[in-house]
Amino acid sequence: MGRVGLPLALVLARSGLRVIGVDVDTQRVSSLNNGEMPFHYPAIRVWLKEALKAKLFTSTSDSKRAIEECDVIVLTVGTPTGEQNQIDYSQLHAALAEVTSTSLRGKALILRSTSVPGTIKRIVMPMLSNKSLSTVGVDFALAACPERILEGQAHKELYELPEIIGAEDTLSATIASELFRKISKDKKILVTTPTGAELAKLFTNIYRYVNFALANEFAIWAERYGEDAHEIIRVANENYVRSKIPRPGFAGGPCLSKDGMLLDNGTTFSSIISAAWKLNEAVPQHVVMALLNEFGTLYGMKLAVLGLSFKADSDDLRLSPSVKLVELLKAYGAIVKVHEPHVPDSLGLEQALQGSDVVILATNHTAFTSLAPTIEASGCVLVYDVWGMFDPKDFVHTRYRRFGRAA
Amino acid sequence: MGRVGLPLALVLARSGLRVIGVDVDTQRVSSLNNGEMPFHYPAIRVWLKEALKAKLFTSTSDSKRAIEECDVIVLTVGTPTGEQNQIDYSQLHAALAEVTSTSLRGKALILRSTSVPGTIKRIVMPMLSNKSLSTVGVDFALAACPERILEGQAHKELYELPEIIGAEDTLSATIASELFRKISKDKKILVTTPTGAELAKLFTNIYRYVNFALANEFAIWAERYGEDAHEIIRVANENYVRSKIPRPGFAGGPCLSKDGMLLDNGTTFSSIISAAWKLNEAVPQHVVMALLNEFGTLYGMKLAVLGLSFKADSDDLRLSPSVKLVELLKAYGAIVKVHEPHVPDSLGLEQALQGSDVVILATNHTAFTSLAPTIEASGCVLVYDVWGMFDPKDFVHTRYRRFGRAA
Repeated sequence: MGRVGLPLALVLARSGLRVIGVDVDTQRVSSLNNGEMPFHYPAIRVWLKEALKAKLFTSTSDSKRAIEECDVIVLTVGTPTGEQNQIDYSQLHAALAEVTSTSLRGKALILRSTSVPGTIKRIVMPMLSNKSLSTVGVDFALAACPERILEGQAHKELYELPEIIGAEDTLSATIASELFRKISKDKKILVTTPTGAELAKLFTNIYRYVNFALANEFAIWAERYGEDAHEIIRVANENYVRSKIPRPGFAGGPCLSKDGMLLDNGTTFSSIISAAWKLNEAVPQHVVMALLNEFGTLYGMKLAVLGLSFKADSDDLRLSPSVKLVELLKAYGAIVKVHEPHVPDSLGLEQALQGSDVVILATNHTAFTSLAPTIEASGCVLVYDVWGMFDPKDFVHTRYRRFGRAA
Repeated sequence: MGRVGLPLALVLARSGLRVIGVDVDTQRVSSLNNGEMPFHYPAIRVWLKEALKAKLFTSTSDSKRAIEECDVIVLTVGTPTGEQNQIDYSQLHAALAEVTSTSLRGKALILRSTSVPGTIKRIVMPMLSNKSLSTVGVDFALAACPERILEGQAHKELYELPEIIGAEDTLSATIASELFRKISKDKKILVTTPTGAELAKLFTNIYRYVNFALANEFAIWAERYGEDAHEIIRVANENYVRSKIPRPGFAGGPCLSKDGMLLDNGTTFSSIISAAWKLNEAVPQHVVMALLNEFGTLYGMKLAVLGLSFKADSDDLRLSPSVKLVELLKAYGAIVKVHEPHVPDSLGLEQALQGSDVVILATNHTAFTSLAPTIEASGCVLVYDVWGMFDPKDFVHTRYRRFGRAA
């Protein structure tokens, strides 16, 4: 019942299906049954209330009962990477152990998680066939249907995005397609192989991540040549169909920064992906270096960091470059106060700004867009804008620095 | 009077300006004055005839006279890279020496060539100010207006694309803008700094080049995982706004493979650009390896290579991966016959196919699209399709291999 599973469960309930949400976290389960969201997502909160009221959704930690009761089992377990960049299959294996503890006959199993290409074919399929003593495509259905939703957009994109169905046989492809057509009968269904589906998901995310890294590389070049990357990228893209360079800024989070590794680990040599990863992961340190150039030392300086989540209007802190930045700043001896509006126990804006020498705009939350006058009024010496969110003209007394623009 | 200068000269003549085309190559000059094109470009050939007839265009090798006669001087010299990846400024310096041999007062100088960021500001501007004893923005105008046209599309894109005008002062910006507005009064003009204009040009090309490299990396991953990248990329892109992954294939030529170096040489460390360059430049060798996997050796084998130019429907062989492929194949002892329809002294299709064991589709010329039956009829053993241009079902007796698809 995480950020992938819960919205999917609720959209299926909205489509009239009876859905049981399974999670190992008993506290999360009881909260959900009381209509409380485990993370910040107002639109999905509404769906939760509706689904509970319609009695189409309940949550439980009793996976055995849920598996027995349901015709379709969707796995939305996490597939994070570990300290050596290896994929961590522990959640997947735990889930598969549950699934194979009962008969799969007449059921469909769908893997919604991002996985290393070949996971379905080389890991899941042999294990299921062996443990369940039954045959994929005959006794049960099995498909890879990777999620490709932008975090925070599930309430729209579950209806709008095409679904990739990776299946080895017609039965599996048909059942998985029918499930997603329940959400919307106009939903575009793209059928391919399981490994093809796994690759397609990774290709999409890596494509985005590499382009963010390229924008960040451009930002660093522009700084080097005494220019402003934001302005140059605007000029390069304007009315020019072959150029859609993204804006520079932090690129991280639990999907993009990890997904490249799932491919890259498959070979011993470096790739464009590793170059992109190196670049994106170095941007927080680049910010620290820029501040060191300004002040010589950060020891004992008071810094306010605005935004801690890895992306705008989210409370997700996993693999967030903002979190990395805060850790780095503390390591250099700075006194850091963080304001993250979507994390309940974070400091308020006023508390964070008060007495701070430097203010860093670290996450591009919509609520921060109009904050320039408040920041200038706080009396800080310098603003560092990771996202180029503010207009340089917004600041008269305060020094303004942005990532991608020469000081 | 190359691929950049000639179309620009002729579009300005079409706009009613009197244009003198300068080239050091006296043979090219006399050909042009006789209405003969120096390269394959039917649409521009028509413009040449028209401009000569209207007496708005003449060509000469006497640069001194041309510079004296004209109000606006546009430099479209080549800025290639040398064997150590350094930029070769010899053509630029030769042109600047000509330009400064006469007074620049009252004239405008426009650099249309791709250049290392800072070339205008750090090289051209100090030199001109010193040699001409006059001041930019007061006595003469100076702007960087880098070309961003797709080779072979100048006849359309000279009218449609926005122009980036990089100028330090209002006079230079105004004069350069007016020049390009002569082509079309609706032309979008984007004014920035000279270094900004140089960077914007490079950003655009590098963005494209890196995305082609990424597609090629995806092709290699798909092969590794036993899949077809063409199919997976289609699935990943279909109805999905965040994914515009290009198709795999050779990426090279005198612009894309060189432009990254102009930025990358500015630092001592590797970048995404170098990773992309490494990847794209390795694709011809990857094709050789695939053939070696099929046949064990290429020694004494007869190979037909279809297409030698670096891009579709062009005769431009500069930095072409197809040329590199032919050289590699010969190094492995293969007997290679090349059919390049746009190069006059190349073999005919029939001659190239006759007796060949292997046919390689190396350049995606439009004319090759429907060639599958002819190739199969030639009796070759295997077709290697670098571009995924053919349908695997096109070949019944002949083995079909394509870059990005597992054998």
